[in-house]
Amino acid sequence: MRIADAGDPLMGQLVARYGAEEALAQVREGRLGPGFVAEIAARRGKPIDCERRLAAWRARLPYVDAEADLARGEELGARLVVPGDVEWPTQLDDLHHERPLGLWLHGSADLRFACLRSVSIVGSRAATPYGVHVAAELAAGLSEAGWTIVSGGAYGIDAAAHRGALAGVAETIAVLACGTDVAYPAGNHGLFEGMRARGLLVSECPPGVRPTRIRFLVRNRLIAALTRGTVVVEAAIRSGALSTAGHAVKLSRHVAAVPGPVTSGNSIGCHRLIRRAEAVCVTTTHEVIELMAAIGDDLSPEPRAPVLPRDRLDAESRSILEAVPSRSGAGPATIAVSAGVDLMTTLSHLGVLAAAGYVERTDHGWRLRRST
Amino acid sequence: MRIADAGDPLMGQLVARYGAEEALAQVREGRLGPGFVAEIAARRGKPIDCERRLAAWRARLPYVDAEADLARGEELGARLVVPGDVEWPTQLDDLHHERPLGLWLHGSADLRFACLRSVSIVGSRAATPYGVHVAAELAAGLSEAGWTIVSGGAYGIDAAAHRGALAGVAETIAVLACGTDVAYPAGNHGLFEGMRARGLLVSECPPGVRPTRIRFLVRNRLIAALTRGTVVVEAAIRSGALSTAGHAVKLSRHVAAVPGPVTSGNSIGCHRLIRRAEAVCVTTTHEVIELMAAIGDDLSPEPRAPVLPRDRLDAESRSILEAVPSRSGAGPATIAVSAGVDLMTTLSHLGVLAAAGYVERTDHGWRLRRST
Repeated sequence: MRIADAGDPLMGQLVARYGAEEALAQVREGRLGPGFVAEIAARRGKPIDCERRLAAWRARLPYVDAEADLARGEELGARLVVPGDVEWPTQLDDLHHERPLGLWLHGSADLRFACLRSVSIVGSRAATPYGVHVAAELAAGLSEAGWTIVSGGAYGIDAAAHRGALAGVAETIAVLACGTDVAYPAGNHGLFEGMRARGLLVSECPPGVRPTRIRFLVRNRLIAALTRGTVVVEAAIRSGALSTAGHAVKLSRHVAAVPGPVTSGNSIGCHRLIRRAEAVCVTTTHEVIELMAAIGDDLSPEPRAPVLPRDRLDAESRSILEAVPSRSGAGPATIAVSAGVDLMTTLSHLGVLAAAGYVERTDHGWRLRRST
Repeated sequence: MRIADAGDPLMGQLVARYGAEEALAQVREGRLGPGFVAEIAARRGKPIDCERRLAAWRARLPYVDAEADLARGEELGARLVVPGDVEWPTQLDDLHHERPLGLWLHGSADLRFACLRSVSIVGSRAATPYGVHVAAELAAGLSEAGWTIVSGGAYGIDAAAHRGALAGVAETIAVLACGTDVAYPAGNHGLFEGMRARGLLVSECPPGVRPTRIRFLVRNRLIAALTRGTVVVEAAIRSGALSTAGHAVKLSRHVAAVPGPVTSGNSIGCHRLIRRAEAVCVTTTHEVIELMAAIGDDLSPEPRAPVLPRDRLDAESRSILEAVPSRSGAGPATIAVSAGVDLMTTLSHLGVLAAAGYVERTDHGWRLRRST
């Protein structure tokens, strides 16, 4: 984890083929396993400069002190989990050669268990008050329903999602692009404290590692892979959240996007996802749950229009009611002609409408009752 | 048009079968054509009470004065067009038996010609400032591009669409649920004046007829049928705009909906259309035109992210650039290890990055240049 960059597929294949200990021994010896390089090249269909990559890994060897990392982690209260551990979330296998070699965890939650029913909520750092509000509301609703909220711990939508989740009852997980002790950005310090108490800070980076642009992008694949699906709340046209959504699409996870004002630059990315049918349009917690849950579970209630008393009338009664004047009265014959209904039917319907309180009879004929 | 209600399918079939003059003669005689009733019943698969409908039509006969209607129309400056006239828009044939028997027109535009390239923009009467803004912007953009805007002349989204259209160069058409002289609501009087000058007021109702709830709903089928497609800008869960969208779906017209804040009740109807895939999500004039125009014409430009100078760097240069500290300097060996790139390559890339202005060499090593 110190020698190769996070998500390095060559190292991923080396470890998959030989196991971590043998892979490390080969790097130390400066010679990759016989046939391995040819195999990789054959699989990719073009040659790969393994020698140069090996040299770069080896250049980092003198600076690596695994014992010190583990000691530092223990001192901080963080733990390292690797594939095969009970707490390892096996859905990360979907990342194939880019699966992390291990994850540093800091917090009270069990990573594998917490992610069984989890949704990631991501979006712009420079979020609008609308986006912050919606992210917090969605996260709180999902958390109340027992869904773990995963995000990136950044300002804006990420922070709102974590905060909303903490307002509910479920755990919330931040996947960081730096050591769990660095916990960037510092302005979310209080939030990270809350997540260590009810949730987790997760990172591929050993303690002390600082975030870089590349680490943020590489980190996004973990947010997508850990969860059943990703909800993009706000995303400008150039947003890291779209990279997470892209990973989710590639990993066959659900992708949802929240619409917003078409006048808001922060919703352009969401609308593009919806227009391209890469994301489902979601507007409520229920709709997110319907999408993410197992098929047939948790169907979202359709938004229902209120039923007005008039709706219960048959077509003939409605026509007659429309023909009754609101102020001055009208005789049944006039009403019948206007409604296009014969006189006998009109008289009988007027009686029923009067009994139901829609119309009243005055000295000048029938008219609507005020309250209708 | 005075005897039967607008869109009465029985009258539509009678006129289709015998022509308007013979149909009127049969109603006057009180006897529908031999076999016609049986034919209708056979087609519907269940008996239909033609006698009662005939009686209702006949009850209106004494109040009908066609000559007076025509004279009144001429006096007002309105004209009556019927199927077969040069100005008759043949796309109304898609309404089959509910095709209007005729249309009263008041204004300078040619109805058939104006509707060749037309879009309807509809939505809530109680619109939000957001909806009003978007409706006006879309209509103005479409009008500038030569598209006729059709709407219902109501307050809110309708009025904003007509106003936006008048701000452009194309014509705009209001399809009313009352006589073109009644021109409800009165508050849009100035707008209707503008539309008579550059556009049309259109109605199935003869002069002097007042609007009713039923006439509004029946009118919506004309808005859908006249145009290539319907854009719903804002619609609460119970909105006439959804009835227009429903007609457009049934008529195989394009249907689009503008997303809005999920916190706005006025956007619930739009989001439901999008979620059910009954409408395409549209956010700009271009996207509306792309949808409504002939296939291949007027493709909408995709929203493009700005390209930053860093994007042009290859992966190795980016890694090296990330490894260069921003304040204190670092030696090439440290940078090479951090970037995971060998020393010779690092040195050569640092030279290129310095020439391009990304990094600079100081007494303490390499560092980022301020402006980057």
